[in-house]
Amino acid sequence: MSGLKFRRKHIVHTFECDVKKEMTLPALINIMVETSGLQSRHLGNTNEQMSERGLSWIIIQYDMQITQMPKSRETITIETEAISYNRFFTYRKFRAFDEADNILVEVLTTFAMMDIKTRKLTQIQEELVAPYQAEKIRTMIRAPKIQAVNLETASELPFRVRYLDIDGNNHVNNAKYFDWMINSIDLEILKNYTVGSVNIKYEKEVNFGNIINSFVSVEEVEKDKVMTVHHIENDHAIACRANITWVKRN
Amino acid sequence: MSGLKFRRKHIVHTFECDVKKEMTLPALINIMVETSGLQSRHLGNTNEQMSERGLSWIIIQYDMQITQMPKSRETITIETEAISYNRFFTYRKFRAFDEADNILVEVLTTFAMMDIKTRKLTQIQEELVAPYQAEKIRTMIRAPKIQAVNLETASELPFRVRYLDIDGNNHVNNAKYFDWMINSIDLEILKNYTVGSVNIKYEKEVNFGNIINSFVSVEEVEKDKVMTVHHIENDHAIACRANITWVKRN
Repeated sequence: MSGLKFRRKHIVHTFECDVKKEMTLPALINIMVETSGLQSRHLGNTNEQMSERGLSWIIIQYDMQITQMPKSRETITIETEAISYNRFFTYRKFRAFDEADNILVEVLTTFAMMDIKTRKLTQIQEELVAPYQAEKIRTMIRAPKIQAVNLETASELPFRVRYLDIDGNNHVNNAKYFDWMINSIDLEILKNYTVGSVNIKYEKEVNFGNIINSFVSVEEVEKDKVMTVHHIENDHAIACRANITWVKRN
Repeated sequence: MSGLKFRRKHIVHTFECDVKKEMTLPALINIMVETSGLQSRHLGNTNEQMSERGLSWIIIQYDMQITQMPKSRETITIETEAISYNRFFTYRKFRAFDEADNILVEVLTTFAMMDIKTRKLTQIQEELVAPYQAEKIRTMIRAPKIQAVNLETASELPFRVRYLDIDGNNHVNNAKYFDWMINSIDLEILKNYTVGSVNIKYEKEVNFGNIINSFVSVEEVEKDKVMTVHHIENDHAIACRANITWVKRN
């Protein structure tokens, strides 16, 4: 299973980094998704052409493995590769490499096509995915199951969906959900642990002005490894779920 | 008055843009300040060397004139120029140009040096500014006076300072204040007007976990032009003041 690859270099900006001078998850996701947008433009398949057909790509799930988060001012290579597609989903990998071509991050992403008017999923249109040379498959690629928040031990923090959270597609940028999740985690974990993996699934859209609640519970996985278990609740429905594993820093 | 100039190209990312597909103020400020950091590195004058001396650059004020905000996927040139300095302040211009070299944005910035331990301003150390070849002056460059919020008509919105708001210098990135201000403005203004100028002055630091209040009142300037008048209050003290003028879109 593999399709066209597309690569670009990126120098990690200081403002893309956290207090540890490591790239933040939202910044990493933004630059990766931008890279697939650049590949689409390169193949003559712009978002504008999708819009003209009344369609929009939406992101369903990320499954991320992080060996080492890129560091401030590091030159990284971002690679994207259209892997495969079935009737309803397309699968794409993103990778980040350091200057010696060691892999830092690998992400498997599930995309779907949405009908802009009905806001519902629609079947993949073959002529729109043809340029990426991905393999047509009959099966679904299943990401790891996402464990549910333990509501008995969970903490909860409200966030207001802000004007600047809304992007040019008129919806909340998918990287903002990482903000709401990370910013609800206990400071001791954020300071003493580093991200090892993320599995996030988007279930319902949230809109400008909504007050969402970010729930998080914590589980010990093994010695020096914990998992933060998240969901985003909006108007009593779950909009997004995620599991993040964290490895203790030396 | 002029010193060394430094230029770099930047392609505006879609995630740096708002619902109008125009670059946001925080994104523009981030990329500009990063450019002066690159010039410093280029001149062998890194933030790390400043830290070793127990010093840090801090931003006191921005005075911005915006002819046209850069647009999504536009290639712009960011220019920075060390203008001049006196005993306590250094002055630097930032400019953004379009591909035909028309000026889009011009910013005059006032920097100061802070002693990291005492968190107080310290005199400019001449050997640290010498590489920029800026002119030494005896006077202060005064930015336009910032008008005060009309508390009788102001609205007020709280924001929690989040973990991801803190940068590698261990304080709130100065662009975050723009988030708090813009996100407190009435949606009708944000939708129907475009930014013409900004004058912002930083007065006190805010810290992780603080709940700040973003105050805004609105004044008619002339036909099709309004000014939003802002301050950020933290623990009953004003941390930051700003005036933003907005011009009605056609």
